Amino acid sequence: PLASWMKQHPPERLPSLQGACPVPYRRPRFLRGSSSSPGAADASRRPDSRPVRSPARGRTLPWNAGYAEIINAEKSEFNEDQAACGKLCIRRCEFGAEEEWLTLCPEEFLTGHYWALFDGHGGPAAAILAANTLHSCLRRQLEAVVEGLVATQPPMHLNGRCICPSDPQFVEEKGIRAEDLVIGALESAFQECDEVIGRELEASGQMGGCTALVAVSLQGKLYMANAGDSRAILVRRDEIRPLSFEFTPETERQRIQQLAFVYPELLAGEFTRLEFPRRLKGDDLGQKVLFRDHHMSGWSYKRVEKSDLKYPLIHGQGRQARLLGTLAVSRGLGDHQLRVLDTNIQLKPFLLSVPQVTVLDVDQLELQEDDVVVMATDGLWDVLSNEQVAWLVRSFLPGNQEDPHRFSKLAQMLIHSTQGKEDSLTEEGQVSYDDVSVFVIPLHSQGQESSDH
Amino acid sequence: PLASWMKQHPPERLPSLQGACPVPYRRPRFLRGSSSSPGAADASRRPDSRPVRSPARGRTLPWNAGYAEIINAEKSEFNEDQAACGKLCIRRCEFGAEEEWLTLCPEEFLTGHYWALFDGHGGPAAAILAANTLHSCLRRQLEAVVEGLVATQPPMHLNGRCICPSDPQFVEEKGIRAEDLVIGALESAFQECDEVIGRELEASGQMGGCTALVAVSLQGKLYMANAGDSRAILVRRDEIRPLSFEFTPETERQRIQQLAFVYPELLAGEFTRLEFPRRLKGDDLGQKVLFRDHHMSGWSYKRVEKSDLKYPLIHGQGRQARLLGTLAVSRGLGDHQLRVLDTNIQLKPFLLSVPQVTVLDVDQLELQEDDVVVMATDGLWDVLSNEQVAWLVRSFLPGNQEDPHRFSKLAQMLIHSTQGKEDSLTEEGQVSYDDVSVFVIPLHSQGQESSDH
Repeated sequence: PLASWMKQHPPERLPSLQGACPVPYRRPRFLRGSSSSPGAADASRRPDSRPVRSPARGRTLPWNAGYAEIINAEKSEFNEDQAACGKLCIRRCEFGAEEEWLTLCPEEFLTGHYWALFDGHGGPAAAILAANTLHSCLRRQLEAVVEGLVATQPPMHLNGRCICPSDPQFVEEKGIRAEDLVIGALESAFQECDEVIGRELEASGQMGGCTALVAVSLQGKLYMANAGDSRAILVRRDEIRPLSFEFTPETERQRIQQLAFVYPELLAGEFTRLEFPRRLKGDDLGQKVLFRDHHMSGWSYKRVEKSDLKYPLIHGQGRQARLLGTLAVSRGLGDHQLRVLDTNIQLKPFLLSVPQVTVLDVDQLELQEDDVVVMATDGLWDVLSNEQVAWLVRSFLPGNQEDPHRFSKLAQMLIHSTQGKEDSLTEEGQVSYDDVSVFVIPLHSQGQESSDH
Repeated sequence: PLASWMKQHPPERLPSLQGACPVPYRRPRFLRGSSSSPGAADASRRPDSRPVRSPARGRTLPWNAGYAEIINAEKSEFNEDQAACGKLCIRRCEFGAEEEWLTLCPEEFLTGHYWALFDGHGGPAAAILAANTLHSCLRRQLEAVVEGLVATQPPMHLNGRCICPSDPQFVEEKGIRAEDLVIGALESAFQECDEVIGRELEASGQMGGCTALVAVSLQGKLYMANAGDSRAILVRRDEIRPLSFEFTPETERQRIQQLAFVYPELLAGEFTRLEFPRRLKGDDLGQKVLFRDHHMSGWSYKRVEKSDLKYPLIHGQGRQARLLGTLAVSRGLGDHQLRVLDTNIQLKPFLLSVPQVTVLDVDQLELQEDDVVVMATDGLWDVLSNEQVAWLVRSFLPGNQEDPHRFSKLAQMLIHSTQGKEDSLTEEGQVSYDDVSVFVIPLHSQGQESSDH
């Protein structure tokens, strides 16, 4: 589908997406790797993309996902959105296995699929590193626990190739399931990738950070790991289900204020930890104003002291909310060197690299033909609501069931809808001036694939 | 209803509740106060208990709630459960107003109702102090913000008696509503009460702590503030809605582990922060075992080191889970002096006194005759599920609509069901050996009261 997409639109300029402002088009980045079968975003219906049945229970999703992206030259010189997708081949091995990511994996033990969106800030470096690194970290983490993944229940002890059900009663009592190992692997992989990015950026004298939204299909389940403000939703005929939650200075206010309470030195006397409805001015001194602190989910009043006039730790509402006046997200990868402008105050202590992981039990859904997961960076969700995206999905897919490129076309259409065309769905033709990247992942296996179930 | 209840059952012994073990009966404690109209749990249908219409918007709930309690002499010498309820009279005043709690409040400005359950541990002292103190703290906190409560929107500035809509756009943008001030007042009141308890226990050389579950009906909303493992649910004809969530070492694992990560000295080298499926033994040394740390919601494997053999910070499953081997709850009031047996390790740094507050918009519910809120200490929920309690409510109330004591009788029946009678609802006639206290709060105003709406 990307091929046809590119034929219609010459690389230099993308007329149909120009709208009010010129939108340069950039060829989507393919996954790097020494592989003969690069896992690219336009993998729809390629002969080698047929799902491979996993030896363990559960079905593998088809990975003929649709992908589209747009970059806006007015905002950034380089595309700060990066994407990656591919087959996830987990081998049963001890140590020192060579890199074989995205090959056909003749010796694979467990296979799944991986889709990832990274939205960079302060330059594209962190997002590019994440797109090139995170899948390897994840594969390594999953391979380290693969014996637990394929057992009926993860064993208390992991003993090389011997899968012995050690102390099952304790594992049972704690309710530990194989999916908890995948969640743990995703959590560890994000942290490991963050460390790699920190080292690489320092070594190359580069800067920047990125959000990360990662989908993994494994053993009949879809895992969605999110660190940042991208979003994934499940769209079915009669259901819209959020699969991720955004992490911003607003949504993580209490965690961030708590940290500043425990380590006040992180604010270097330049910021106030407290939240007020607006930044206070000299006139407010001595008055009682609305405020809240780290332990409060409600509001109260306090008498304004001089220290309350400092710049707030978290300032602004909604999309404008900033951490230390600098950053709009509170989780992600990178930003190891990021400091508040003209100060020595670091952002990194306030940022988490660990994602929140949700699990969709695909095998338990009564899947219909047009059930899809839509993953997109914040540029899409700034101008389209979940309901609007679902409406577009439901309008487009039923009439295009024979089109092998329908998921890519849908992804393009979603992006199109953010560019303020007259027929746009968005209120008053709202335009996204941000980079936008979209994956549309079909959940239903068709033809030969569904008979595989 | 309590009066009739007591007539049927002589104070010394309560035959119908004896079951397998003798259950001494103790007269329920009334709210202390200098009031001529003590707010007691058996307030049903007393002439002065008719709800007073608040000058602000919203309806006042009837406070003819039912109440029952049981103490079990085999577990504790004194009743560690304490309860309080009463009319909440919030006056518009500056400072230094004398205590008039639970009078008929001729000069009241805003009225509501208050129901509270306190489940003590390590003796009844903290629970008794909380039952005598928390309502005063709450009234004081509410009176401090009362001008914001009765305004269309809380003003940015609070200027004595002048309710000026200062900077409404900022308050609007942050979405701050009057109910956020009530939530803030509840949060502050719990903290203030915790400080009072700390001082009082120290001064009197006493020990102990308690959980707190507090319902406040104000301006057409029901606020439920919970710190501990009591529980409140809404039961309607076709709905069961949890109004609180339990705070135990298990449900707050990540917060507690995080604190031990930040301040390792709190464990004094005696405990391990990590969670394992069971306590590790010498045999496990060098093996890879399942574990999780503060940043993980999933599980992974680690190689066991000597320090992992220490006693776990949180140990045991479900009802047996203990913080530092000592305490079964992670939020509550008191416990300022509590230490791990034979050590100097303090529990208090790991405990929060701040409650989680949920808001039920009673005015928005299409109330039916038998809609009630059931509040109870953990003794009830240990042996009855939400569904079983709802079943008992729905079985009892429709046939007893004319009985003015029906809510107290229902509360008694719920407690009865925990005592392992043959006709018991609980699995295998499960018996609660814990103190149990129950409030049944009707939401529907009847007769004259409903015409008041």
